[in-house]
Amino acid sequence: MVHEPDGAFARATRIERIDERTWGVDVPDGWDIGGNVNGGVVFAAVGRAMAAATGREPVTMTAHYLAPVHHGALTITVDVIREGGSFSTVRADVRQDDRHAVTLLGTLGAFDDGAPVILQSVEPPRWPDPQGLQRIRTNPAGFMPPPFVDCVDIRILPEDAGFATGRPSGNPVIRSYWRLLDDEPMDIFALLLAVDGVAQPTFNTDLPIGWTPTIELTAHIRAHPVHGWLRLDTHTPLVGHGRMSVDGTVWDSADQLVAQVRQIALVSRPRT
Amino acid sequence: MVHEPDGAFARATRIERIDERTWGVDVPDGWDIGGNVNGGVVFAAVGRAMAAATGREPVTMTAHYLAPVHHGALTITVDVIREGGSFSTVRADVRQDDRHAVTLLGTLGAFDDGAPVILQSVEPPRWPDPQGLQRIRTNPAGFMPPPFVDCVDIRILPEDAGFATGRPSGNPVIRSYWRLLDDEPMDIFALLLAVDGVAQPTFNTDLPIGWTPTIELTAHIRAHPVHGWLRLDTHTPLVGHGRMSVDGTVWDSADQLVAQVRQIALVSRPRT
Repeated sequence: MVHEPDGAFARATRIERIDERTWGVDVPDGWDIGGNVNGGVVFAAVGRAMAAATGREPVTMTAHYLAPVHHGALTITVDVIREGGSFSTVRADVRQDDRHAVTLLGTLGAFDDGAPVILQSVEPPRWPDPQGLQRIRTNPAGFMPPPFVDCVDIRILPEDAGFATGRPSGNPVIRSYWRLLDDEPMDIFALLLAVDGVAQPTFNTDLPIGWTPTIELTAHIRAHPVHGWLRLDTHTPLVGHGRMSVDGTVWDSADQLVAQVRQIALVSRPRT
Repeated sequence: MVHEPDGAFARATRIERIDERTWGVDVPDGWDIGGNVNGGVVFAAVGRAMAAATGREPVTMTAHYLAPVHHGALTITVDVIREGGSFSTVRADVRQDDRHAVTLLGTLGAFDDGAPVILQSVEPPRWPDPQGLQRIRTNPAGFMPPPFVDCVDIRILPEDAGFATGRPSGNPVIRSYWRLLDDEPMDIFALLLAVDGVAQPTFNTDLPIGWTPTIELTAHIRAHPVHGWLRLDTHTPLVGHGRMSVDGTVWDSADQLVAQVRQIALVSRPRT
């Protein structure tokens, strides 16, 4: 197979410089959940703008989501707060239709792919081969799965996929394989899309399946991913005070821990 | 015992309004690690300023550390990005001696203490009684333990305390009891101090014990803590590419999961 240099993900998150600190993005239709663009698409586009502004790669990024984003044009401004010898720290803001939609902080640096892992106290997951698992497709007649899932190749482990057919496992866990379509290259920006997750782990409990607005999401990129499948291991430790957290660990096909992510979100309410 | 309304922690993080968006803090000597003020002291003071600016309480806060802070005067500016019906999102910046030391984002809201925990997939730790454990005190002749530990009451579980006497456990874990001195009230701002941690879990491995500059730290506050001991459960999943992460979970004495924290830091180097 030939790597697709200009695949669907690259097109959805392509940035065009407008002025010294502003980039434009035109998010195509289809990357949405209930009409709102998947937060990871915006997160990845902002990562590209931060990288363009600094000449470095995202190490840690935090997004606070202020308003939903729909498909179409949005602007990203990036302001460099500090440029040091090893790291650049930046602030970014996403606006659409004169609305402030997302505010972010990021620190960018370099990855030394030759440096060894010195210590790792977690084991890569051993899951069945993804080729034997069913790809999740959208349900045009219902709210879930959302259209967004058709833009990537997502395969949830059967024991965690029960929620999709009305049989939640009871366990607030969702484990899935994840890759871009058309053999599009896997890189740090694809990780920024992946960390937003596949579905809320709480869908596997008796909490309602619905739109769960993210308040804040922070991702740490730990290594360049190699090409191939990612494994996304997500769970919800706590739901309380109307808020829930989701913890995720992302592994690449070379068994590298490539990203850690945590978000805090509102608890889903039944769709009326 | 009587709660101390004006204890050492309240004094160290007292904010004074300078103008509509600026607060001053005068951090006393003693809260430091190798001459730099513990990051949690600054984090807690910023939390107070964010709360003063919004009339709400911190739900999620992220700090990117740009330069070390020493004791003495610093200023905190808070800019409200969005004020919504349930949440306020703010940006904050800490400056000292005309240096930009920390940049932060926070979202603040309300906590409904009467609301039940709906789902919790992690169990509170069962540890031996703190009264039987030794309080960590500073070593005036050495780098560790740092002076900061004398400002609070920290009791590390014996199986994780080996690093302090040259016998690291081999396990990148530090579990400790933690409380303020003089029966000072436990609240959300004390949690913001506690989440910075007690010592790096990597001190229990063969990595050098030394100053480990935090790049970024994010804390989620999940509930108001009740008065009494906190339990801090911290571990390092991965050290690689010169960077390490620390994950922490904080429990109060009523077995509530009150905070989750993750930081990414530089790997310590031997002190020369």
